[in-house]
Amino acid sequence: MNRFAGMTVSQLLAALASPDPTPGGGTAAAIAGAMGTSLLVMVAGLAKSRNNTDDEKAALARARAAIQPLTATLTTLADADTAAFDAVMAAYRLPKSTDEEKGVRTKAIQSALRGATEVPLETLRACAAALEHAQVVAGNGNKSADSDVGVAIGLLKAAANGAAANVRINLEGLHDQSYNAATEAETARLLRLPPALG
Amino acid sequence: MNRFAGMTVSQLLAALASPDPTPGGGTAAAIAGAMGTSLLVMVAGLAKSRNNTDDEKAALARARAAIQPLTATLTTLADADTAAFDAVMAAYRLPKSTDEEKGVRTKAIQSALRGATEVPLETLRACAAALEHAQVVAGNGNKSADSDVGVAIGLLKAAANGAAANVRINLEGLHDQSYNAATEAETARLLRLPPALG
Repeated sequence: MNRFAGMTVSQLLAALASPDPTPGGGTAAAIAGAMGTSLLVMVAGLAKSRNNTDDEKAALARARAAIQPLTATLTTLADADTAAFDAVMAAYRLPKSTDEEKGVRTKAIQSALRGATEVPLETLRACAAALEHAQVVAGNGNKSADSDVGVAIGLLKAAANGAAANVRINLEGLHDQSYNAATEAETARLLRLPPALG
Repeated sequence: MNRFAGMTVSQLLAALASPDPTPGGGTAAAIAGAMGTSLLVMVAGLAKSRNNTDDEKAALARARAAIQPLTATLTTLADADTAAFDAVMAAYRLPKSTDEEKGVRTKAIQSALRGATEVPLETLRACAAALEHAQVVAGNGNKSADSDVGVAIGLLKAAANGAAANVRINLEGLHDQSYNAATEAETARLLRLPPALG
């Protein structure tokens, strides 16, 4: 069982509200994204859909199959985000009295920041993938569940934006310019990907 | 303990993903809003803030005190949303063979729809209140937590938009035009209230 997925909602909210730096926005964004994917799975699985053709029904089933594993991905990323941020803080706390210590610390910080960039980038990828499939759910799902699809899209967009902000904050501290450029380019592309849906 | 607040995050996600109509978007929106208020409480409570004046510190403390109870409000609304929607479905299932039955059923539906309108309206009010205070947190909170504030605002806006959509869907079925006009006016006002923040 993942750490946050195994907490009660009350415990998660208390952990987010506590003055400890983790869990923070990255974890909350991943959980919000997981609520979005869960709602999409619900709508895509409703028996009574619109007057769908067989092709549309098959597209809905494919969307459901593609979205379903993203819930577990996002709950795992909720844990990973906290772990990655804790690693960054631990690296900053390393000793820096000697040049050797400073060198070790700088490398540790760079490595930890890279991890703390990759995790929200994965969150952004998962949310963008879900938003792409959400179009099919919005177009072919049961009309009475339109507002559920709307909430799902809103949560996934909020999660994607939050994850992108965390990617960019960590990129500011990273020295590998080619990695930074590629990551910024992917982040910008993923944020543009999902067409206006809500 | 509230029903959904007492569930593990995993259980909540599974309940959202199940084909049962509840819990749905209204409950997910309320929980997302509660994650937003929890993050704001965290940031507003951080000891090391910017170089704040005493007035700014007092404003931050006031914002924290105002936001803190909204988490419990929103988790309660998560339960209430599901209960209100279940009541609507129960009303629609009432018998309608005779004119008397039809009359009873129509009144029950109107009453249940009114409840299902009031709950997301309360969610919208709570999110709008949190977003108002979020400005103070954004302006005076610890700078290192800016991305947490950004995620909080994104989640609260998604929750507010989702709640507003649910208010409007239920208004479509309600016959009391003066109630509908007043509720639509409040909904539109609350959606405009929080200045562009994120």
